[in-house]
Amino acid sequence: MDAFVFDRDTAVRRVANGVWAGELSSRWNAGTVPNGGYLMAIAGRMLCASVACPDPLSLTGHYLQPAQPGPVTGQVELLRRGRRVSFAAVTLSQRGRGAIARFTGVFGDLAQQTGETRLEGVPPRLPPPVACEPVEPVAIEVAKRFERRVAPGVGAWLGQGADARAELCAWVRFADGRAQDAHSLALSADALPPPLLAVYGARGWTPTLELTVQIRARPAPGWLLCRTRTRYLTRGLLENDGEFWDEQGELVALARQLARFAEPERPPLGLGDVPPSVSG
Amino acid sequence: MDAFVFDRDTAVRRVANGVWAGELSSRWNAGTVPNGGYLMAIAGRMLCASVACPDPLSLTGHYLQPAQPGPVTGQVELLRRGRRVSFAAVTLSQRGRGAIARFTGVFGDLAQQTGETRLEGVPPRLPPPVACEPVEPVAIEVAKRFERRVAPGVGAWLGQGADARAELCAWVRFADGRAQDAHSLALSADALPPPLLAVYGARGWTPTLELTVQIRARPAPGWLLCRTRTRYLTRGLLENDGEFWDEQGELVALARQLARFAEPERPPLGLGDVPPSVSG
Repeated sequence: MDAFVFDRDTAVRRVANGVWAGELSSRWNAGTVPNGGYLMAIAGRMLCASVACPDPLSLTGHYLQPAQPGPVTGQVELLRRGRRVSFAAVTLSQRGRGAIARFTGVFGDLAQQTGETRLEGVPPRLPPPVACEPVEPVAIEVAKRFERRVAPGVGAWLGQGADARAELCAWVRFADGRAQDAHSLALSADALPPPLLAVYGARGWTPTLELTVQIRARPAPGWLLCRTRTRYLTRGLLENDGEFWDEQGELVALARQLARFAEPERPPLGLGDVPPSVSG
Repeated sequence: MDAFVFDRDTAVRRVANGVWAGELSSRWNAGTVPNGGYLMAIAGRMLCASVACPDPLSLTGHYLQPAQPGPVTGQVELLRRGRRVSFAAVTLSQRGRGAIARFTGVFGDLAQQTGETRLEGVPPRLPPPVACEPVEPVAIEVAKRFERRVAPGVGAWLGQGADARAELCAWVRFADGRAQDAHSLALSADALPPPLLAVYGARGWTPTLELTVQIRARPAPGWLLCRTRTRYLTRGLLENDGEFWDEQGELVALARQLARFAEPERPPLGLGDVPPSVSG
């Protein structure tokens, strides 16, 4: 039995040539629906094992319909085995509803990745985690799996109105102490509340249509430093961009998603509880 | 016969259930290899026709190996037909080399797209096209298909060294006067030189591993205003982010790619000719 809940809940097994099986736990639900980054983490495990590469360099998910907790099957397709990088795709299906998501990725070995480094962007300027304020676990299951800390006073960012910046900066780590790795980045990259909630509050939720995570380095143990931002909401479509650094200050991932801005009369995913109150 | 070269060179025909055929013209080559955005435009046509949606909302390309001018076959897979959006994928193959690229997309009708609009980003501040400097057509075929204009003095941006910002802002339109639409955006989004050339000059080229273009609106006729930027080059991996506005100032597309930074002894794609000299 794996020591950490992430490893237990993303375990997959090969059941036939190109066919994998796993189990979607409700522990990573946003409302009643398993989180999209959680599906991506499971798909990434099936794909890395299939192409015999240790790391995803990028993963792209297309979310066809909501998943549900329970058994999931992955049908893997090898697209190309290369010397440097390989490509593969997997379709996740569930009995009774068919295909729920398609993931396509680029795979390699981040430990062997060499070449020039040059950075124009910088991490967000947040006080160290110990000087930040914990964000209390909330009713959303996936939120309980993480410790999240924001700058003092930022906890009240929800629904500030039109003048707010649709941005959220936070420290994030697994609540049970599991270290981040290339596989958990895909999940962690989708673990913060949508930055648009800073403006609209709980009246808006943002179901993901497409999510791509670039994984640039295996993260050092400890906290992830995250910045997520939405610049362009256009007639109900938006991007959610994320940048992720490890505790050593190394950029470890970039994420971007295309999402719909839905304004239900009542937030359907328990998002009335997100983002959470800040405990002193 | 279509009046414009883009339409001629992206024409596709259905040859069997789920099977499409096209012809890769050398007119959109970067060096000896058809441009990745050109492949995406062809794939987008096959996919939109297959799902019976007028517009791609996003297209993601995974570039498995270099293509070559000549016949190309597309095998289309419908992933989900939805009321609001549909999903589909296509694998492009060429005789003798097998699969060259996989495209996966989200499709809908941009004319029916309604919802909130809220912008935090702004277009680059460039003088109007008439006050900008034309960038001369260069030895690269795909560059000859576009008129590109940059701010006065910016033409000398190539290889400015470590202090330069890896960014390029430009006006772009088809050289033969074809208006932009949702289909041509995918190609135009990949038609500018890599912004990293501002720093490294022609010693670096950046083959694309994965490219995603979000299409937010059908562009108005006229020029596209573009900003492309690379913030994070990490051990030879980089993103190239693009933002695209139409002449009315509407955001029409976002693009991001994951690319490799290759430093060959001699640029293999004729990139010694890019970016071009500026004519007075």
